[in-house]
Amino acid sequence: MNVKKRGRLAIRRRTPPGSSPGTLVVDPAAIRPEVHLMRYGPEELVEQGVDGVDAIKKQLGQSPVTWVDVRGLGDLEFIEQLGDVFEIHGLALEDVVNVHQRPKVDEYEDHLFIVARMHLEDVTGGSEQFSLFLGKDYVLTFQERPGDCFEPVRNRIRQNLGRIRRSGPDYLAYALLDALIDVHFPVLERFGEVVEALEERVISQHRENLVAEIHQIKRGLLGSRRAIWPMREMMSSLTRDESTVISEQTRIFLRDCYDHTVQLMDMVETYREIAASLVDIHLSALSYRMNETMKVLTIIATIFIPLGFIAGVYGMNFNPEKSPWNMPELGWYLGYPFALGLMVLVAVGLVLYFKHKGWLGQRSRFVPRQIDI
Amino acid sequence: MNVKKRGRLAIRRRTPPGSSPGTLVVDPAAIRPEVHLMRYGPEELVEQGVDGVDAIKKQLGQSPVTWVDVRGLGDLEFIEQLGDVFEIHGLALEDVVNVHQRPKVDEYEDHLFIVARMHLEDVTGGSEQFSLFLGKDYVLTFQERPGDCFEPVRNRIRQNLGRIRRSGPDYLAYALLDALIDVHFPVLERFGEVVEALEERVISQHRENLVAEIHQIKRGLLGSRRAIWPMREMMSSLTRDESTVISEQTRIFLRDCYDHTVQLMDMVETYREIAASLVDIHLSALSYRMNETMKVLTIIATIFIPLGFIAGVYGMNFNPEKSPWNMPELGWYLGYPFALGLMVLVAVGLVLYFKHKGWLGQRSRFVPRQIDI
Amino acid sequence: MNVKKRGRLAIRRRTPPGSSPGTLVVDPAAIRPEVHLMRYGPEELVEQGVDGVDAIKKQLGQSPVTWVDVRGLGDLEFIEQLGDVFEIHGLALEDVVNVHQRPKVDEYEDHLFIVARMHLEDVTGGSEQFSLFLGKDYVLTFQERPGDCFEPVRNRIRQNLGRIRRSGPDYLAYALLDALIDVHFPVLERFGEVVEALEERVISQHRENLVAEIHQIKRGLLGSRRAIWPMREMMSSLTRDESTVISEQTRIFLRDCYDHTVQLMDMVETYREIAASLVDIHLSALSYRMNETMKVLTIIATIFIPLGFIAGVYGMNFNPEKSPWNMPELGWYLGYPFALGLMVLVAVGLVLYFKHKGWLGQRSRFVPRQIDI
Amino acid sequence: MNVKKRGRLAIRRRTPPGSSPGTLVVDPAAIRPEVHLMRYGPEELVEQGVDGVDAIKKQLGQSPVTWVDVRGLGDLEFIEQLGDVFEIHGLALEDVVNVHQRPKVDEYEDHLFIVARMHLEDVTGGSEQFSLFLGKDYVLTFQERPGDCFEPVRNRIRQNLGRIRRSGPDYLAYALLDALIDVHFPVLERFGEVVEALEERVISQHRENLVAEIHQIKRGLLGSRRAIWPMREMMSSLTRDESTVISEQTRIFLRDCYDHTVQLMDMVETYREIAASLVDIHLSALSYRMNETMKVLTIIATIFIPLGFIAGVYGMNFNPEKSPWNMPELGWYLGYPFALGLMVLVAVGLVLYFKHKGWLGQRSRFVPRQIDI
Amino acid sequence: MNVKKRGRLAIRRRTPPGSSPGTLVVDPAAIRPEVHLMRYGPEELVEQGVDGVDAIKKQLGQSPVTWVDVRGLGDLEFIEQLGDVFEIHGLALEDVVNVHQRPKVDEYEDHLFIVARMHLEDVTGGSEQFSLFLGKDYVLTFQERPGDCFEPVRNRIRQNLGRIRRSGPDYLAYALLDALIDVHFPVLERFGEVVEALEERVISQHRENLVAEIHQIKRGLLGSRRAIWPMREMMSSLTRDESTVISEQTRIFLRDCYDHTVQLMDMVETYREIAASLVDIHLSALSYRMNETMKVLTIIATIFIPLGFIAGVYGMNFNPEKSPWNMPELGWYLGYPFALGLMVLVAVGLVLYFKHKGWLGQRSRFVPRQIDI
Repeated sequence: MNVKKRGRLAIRRRTPPGSSPGTLVVDPAAIRPEVHLMRYGPEELVEQGVDGVDAIKKQLGQSPVTWVDVRGLGDLEFIEQLGDVFEIHGLALEDVVNVHQRPKVDEYEDHLFIVARMHLEDVTGGSEQFSLFLGKDYVLTFQERPGDCFEPVRNRIRQNLGRIRRSGPDYLAYALLDALIDVHFPVLERFGEVVEALEERVISQHRENLVAEIHQIKRGLLGSRRAIWPMREMMSSLTRDESTVISEQTRIFLRDCYDHTVQLMDMVETYREIAASLVDIHLSALSYRMNETMKVLTIIATIFIPLGFIAGVYGMNFNPEKSPWNMPELGWYLGYPFALGLMVLVAVGLVLYFKHKGWLGQRSRFVPRQIDI
Repeated sequence: MNVKKRGRLAIRRRTPPGSSPGTLVVDPAAIRPEVHLMRYGPEELVEQGVDGVDAIKKQLGQSPVTWVDVRGLGDLEFIEQLGDVFEIHGLALEDVVNVHQRPKVDEYEDHLFIVARMHLEDVTGGSEQFSLFLGKDYVLTFQERPGDCFEPVRNRIRQNLGRIRRSGPDYLAYALLDALIDVHFPVLERFGEVVEALEERVISQHRENLVAEIHQIKRGLLGSRRAIWPMREMMSSLTRDESTVISEQTRIFLRDCYDHTVQLMDMVETYREIAASLVDIHLSALSYRMNETMKVLTIIATIFIPLGFIAGVYGMNFNPEKSPWNMPELGWYLGYPFALGLMVLVAVGLVLYFKHKGWLGQRSRFVPRQIDI
Repeated sequence: MNVKKRGRLAIRRRTPPGSSPGTLVVDPAAIRPEVHLMRYGPEELVEQGVDGVDAIKKQLGQSPVTWVDVRGLGDLEFIEQLGDVFEIHGLALEDVVNVHQRPKVDEYEDHLFIVARMHLEDVTGGSEQFSLFLGKDYVLTFQERPGDCFEPVRNRIRQNLGRIRRSGPDYLAYALLDALIDVHFPVLERFGEVVEALEERVISQHRENLVAEIHQIKRGLLGSRRAIWPMREMMSSLTRDESTVISEQTRIFLRDCYDHTVQLMDMVETYREIAASLVDIHLSALSYRMNETMKVLTIIATIFIPLGFIAGVYGMNFNPEKSPWNMPELGWYLGYPFALGLMVLVAVGLVLYFKHKGWLGQRSRFVPRQIDI
Repeated sequence: MNVKKRGRLAIRRRTPPGSSPGTLVVDPAAIRPEVHLMRYGPEELVEQGVDGVDAIKKQLGQSPVTWVDVRGLGDLEFIEQLGDVFEIHGLALEDVVNVHQRPKVDEYEDHLFIVARMHLEDVTGGSEQFSLFLGKDYVLTFQERPGDCFEPVRNRIRQNLGRIRRSGPDYLAYALLDALIDVHFPVLERFGEVVEALEERVISQHRENLVAEIHQIKRGLLGSRRAIWPMREMMSSLTRDESTVISEQTRIFLRDCYDHTVQLMDMVETYREIAASLVDIHLSALSYRMNETMKVLTIIATIFIPLGFIAGVYGMNFNPEKSPWNMPELGWYLGYPFALGLMVLVAVGLVLYFKHKGWLGQRSRFVPRQIDI
Repeated sequence: MNVKKRGRLAIRRRTPPGSSPGTLVVDPAAIRPEVHLMRYGPEELVEQGVDGVDAIKKQLGQSPVTWVDVRGLGDLEFIEQLGDVFEIHGLALEDVVNVHQRPKVDEYEDHLFIVARMHLEDVTGGSEQFSLFLGKDYVLTFQERPGDCFEPVRNRIRQNLGRIRRSGPDYLAYALLDALIDVHFPVLERFGEVVEALEERVISQHRENLVAEIHQIKRGLLGSRRAIWPMREMMSSLTRDESTVISEQTRIFLRDCYDHTVQLMDMVETYREIAASLVDIHLSALSYRMNETMKVLTIIATIFIPLGFIAGVYGMNFNPEKSPWNMPELGWYLGYPFALGLMVLVAVGLVLYFKHKGWLGQRSRFVPRQIDI
């Protein structure tokens, strides 16, 4: 996935300021919803596509858990009807279709409303909004489009793996959130690798200006931080939540899930600190190389400019015939060797001076010694 | 709207230090108030301009909700009379006319006093103070001048859209605050676009000094932060408020409104971080280009100065006739080719040296590779 | 007022380490106290200078409020006697004479002890300590020297303006603190103007090194921050205070006063952020100008050094008579035009190269485009 | 141990996203477990290797304290059986085998689950995960491989030193955590020495680019911080814990242990601040040396370029015979001395100018005066 | 005292990791303890040296307050016996001999254990650990060596000054802590003076590289911060402490003492901020001077290189006799004045160009205007 693309900054809200709260304005580009329904208990499993509110109503309450998964937000009427069936507050419905919410938990009388962001590993770029309503015997979820990271969860239901069939809808909600969060681990692993590669390049070769690349990484990490931080807050409030729709047993699982978000934040912050430090090294390397460049120029210029001056002096055209004071050196028997010797003397003197200053004879060493601790 | 103008730093308070609290000092430039009154219930709606306290008194209490909207603060006596009618504390009245308050909520015995700032999308620059008193059956608002962002709210009342006619004054107060806050979204969207455009320019071309432009953006964001942060605190304390003038149903709407302020702060902080990072890139780009400039100078000077020196030597006028030691090269058969050859040799040697140093033969690449993650 | 002077860093405590707490050590340079007494109620007002503890004792308790204002701390014995009359703890008295306290509130059994700092608008430099004891029916204040910002408060008492004569000593204490705090507004307004002026200069002309001036501003703001921050804490704890000497009505006024300190801190922090950002711009401007300087040098040197080399070559004295290979150009019919042409060729080539590099033909533009948002 | 190696950033989780929580996925490279069991009371001590769950079951409950120490996580079935015996939650078991947990404490109904990280002083690189279950009469620990820092604790048990034999399993858990934490002290001592050595080099000689080395230190300290910070949180929550498995006496010891983590964090933060400051000094030293280099170049070039120009003028070939205006100096009796004198004059003038500018005659002093405070 | 010396970073713990808690390991270099005992009440005072635990036991409980002051930690057995007499927990005793504790308060059943650090004003370098046990009728203190800052406290006891003889051991403990803390004031005053002197030098002269000196200051302040911050925490927890060994009256004194630590922290943080700002100014001054240097070089080189080129052209040896095109200027009647005139023209042109660029004619002004606010 391309760091650039995921970093779209400006969030466009569709509802105009001042419009009535709970006004549902559907993005014209939104996909028409497909609805997938699973209802299950320890002994039973019904899985089917449904295409109307009535079909959903019929299934509701027949099993311990009913999961209605709406994929696509492009049908206003249908979503409003769903809202009626599940007795959802207008504001929550508005948040469902207005797909730029921060992750959060809102508690309503007999259900919880959870908003999270779903990153798809195999799709380049971006995240989509995932909304979840958790009631006594149902889970209602909304995705922006078909295609998600929940297939392993569905398989666990289908194959009756683990405790999922024996647990309530709160456990299903947990399993979905857990899947959402764990997707971040491979993304951050790749960030870690890129940071390490950059670190290697910054320390070893120093030819290119890497700050723009470091900036891209920082930008990408900023994006991850924006995604994970409110997830962490959300999980933290879920674990502390007093509502009755979450059982004590599930709370232990949510705590584990919360630990994952803490670990993710820890990774993000570590990478960010390293990236910030890389900028420092890189700037110092630029500065150091400039210094080296200047030293070469200074040494060459400082040695040859005086020599050139001497040559210039003896290139003057004063007429030695007019006066014994006029450039008698030109007529000396050893005039030329004398001039050359003078030049050598000056050059040697300057070289010694630079040696004394320590500008020569010491190899510029940038790659640091390995520190063993 | 012009970033520069909106950033006026110095706040001028009109009341001199030490003056009695509750002293109303009206800005001489303030506009004389127009008063607009709406009173409504599920079944009724009266909307009219009023021009005296008595007219207001008569309307009060006849409908479930009365909204008195005062536009302009230039009539001291009228405001004091209003204060008497609605039993407003002198300090609150002082805050109404002293239009540099931070957004806040003050709780009084039987009403809430809310101060917020109103940004007008279509007016260049600046914000004005919006004060709101929320009582059991009235909402009293003060604006600095006519013209606001509440027309959609008024239309909802007039056309009986949504739940506004069926709700109490607390819901009206919510609707007004919501409109105030949502105005920030388009402003921040434009900030986001400017930051992205700057990012593009910083990374791609690097000709100009962009730091001053980045500073302007940072300054503008600082202004937005100053406006939004206390709004967020205000909304947070409203949602947690225990007062009886806000019903439980409205509190859910206020929570939604609070979420918006959180999201706004999130956007502001993200842009600020990116802007701060842009300064780093820009400075490193400057440094990098300086390095390139120096390298060109160093290469040219370092190659030609020694060559010039050789030419200078053979331009000396030592008299070869006076001594066989005096510049015999001048008389050699291949003297000139020898000198030219010597120069070529030196030049080639230096070029090889620079190649070895890696200063040549490697294109300076600033635009970074696209990182795919 | 001079930023430099107000910024004295080192605080000299007069009491040697290890000395008994409550030891009063009076600064030998302290001014002998003048005492000014006002006692008043709704109907009465007595205002007089007093010169002994006995005179004060006689007046105490005869009116609802007695304000004893001690101006000068140079009389140890008198202060100790006052301490006895008002039953003040030795530590509090020590804090009164040791005039480098941070603003704070200490609660004692039947009175509050408040320390604040008084900035005088019209006096250059510095602040003095203001100590206030608030009891059931008295306010006892200590200033370091005569001259304060309370004259408007005294006039309100004398002219029976506002509610001050009808209120208790807690309201008087509030009025005094409010006057102290409001003095900061004009000071910060001037800071704001200086910051804006600096901003203008940094962005527009860039000739001088402004960092030292920015440092002075930052230093001054640091001083204001040190003064205002503990005032804010102090006001916050006063509003939350449970003590009986402050009535519920006055608490509303203190809340307003607390809002002012919040607003002041807001201004200070905004200016500090802008000042910090100015340092960045300024350094980048320095860097940018260095770059420009280097470019001019590089262009001139890089063009003329090769030309000078060519001239040097044809200034060599190889003897064309000795050999046809020795500088035959010197004898060509168009030798000189050839040499000049060569030079022109080289110069044009280099100019084209610089054009290609983008170093020429683009005006260096520092003053940024105005950004419209 | 090598800083580079310990700094592996990317954490690889083995469980794929969406898999059932509590799924144990054992690292194929994990070592097969060896189990070491100690059970003891004031009067008794049994110490033996065991190789099956049944053997453990038999020993459990026979002494006040049983410590089962599992070294290696390579046997899935065995670990699951252990989980059954000690009634461990599936999530806790998952954390045991998934060896990238942050240190934490999870409270279960009748036992505590503690995760910490173990740094081995004598092994180069890395840390391993240490998991501990503390029950009423047992301590169950898991290490990634044999070899730990607990030998002194075992010896205290064997030789009945201190209070360990007379105390419960909570004291044993404390003793193990204390040993884990104290291992950090020698590591940080070496960090302190490296930082001091770097400081010495940065201040005194300034030849190399040390920023990369400073970065390595910062990176290492970042790693230590990541290890110690959650340990501190963990210890803090342990001391505040309400659970019944920790006795009041042991809590005092845990408080001491917590103090150690605070002290460690203090050391880490101090080193980090110093390292950050070193970057500043180093960059300023680079900048300073560049300045010195430029000054040498400027002085030499500025003096000799005008002199060379004078020599060039008198090297022109205008024909004095054609006109009395053409370079009459060449024919002057003292023409050459005049030219040399002119050169000396110019040189002296420039030297005086540089003296006036303060560029000469003042030794560049970098090593700072020792400040005595 | 020398900043360098006090800044030893690495703390060496003597107890090896894993050893039994409460293990007393005495530093072999520790001084053998001298014990000084004072017991007193309002009417009585016994002061004597004692040399055994039995002598102490005999004195205990005979007066309201007994102060046992142990100076030196070199006698393991004696300290253990003391521990038995005063019923001190092993961990506390370990902290006493392990002299690198952070200041802290630990509450035990019938006494408080306080650790603080003692800075001696008149001794160069370092601090020593001061441990204090406060019981119902005794104060037991441990110093690392004889010599302390408590002589004024002892004199207050001897001479019955203030309330110390009439108060309990809690007041004595307060008096000792107060003496310890107040010692920091003169140290910080000197820091303040050094910072101000550095500020003066940074702003005014700018010749030396002062960053290393600023670093030393920052390092010293870091040390002070490390010493004072936990003292502040300690005092804060003492004032909030619920334990019965501290009376209500003494708590007022402790609050005063806490205020002192707040004031100290305030000073430290202010100095640190100023020092950080000084680094910025200094770097900008370096950058500014580099710019000036470069400008001088550029001006001289840019003017003289073209002039030298012209001279070089007319120094070429093309033979005018061979062709009328070959350097006819050489034979012009005014050839030489023409060449000189050309040079003057070029020079004047360049000077005007530099004037236009603003590089000349404007004095470089670094010392800033005094800002009056």
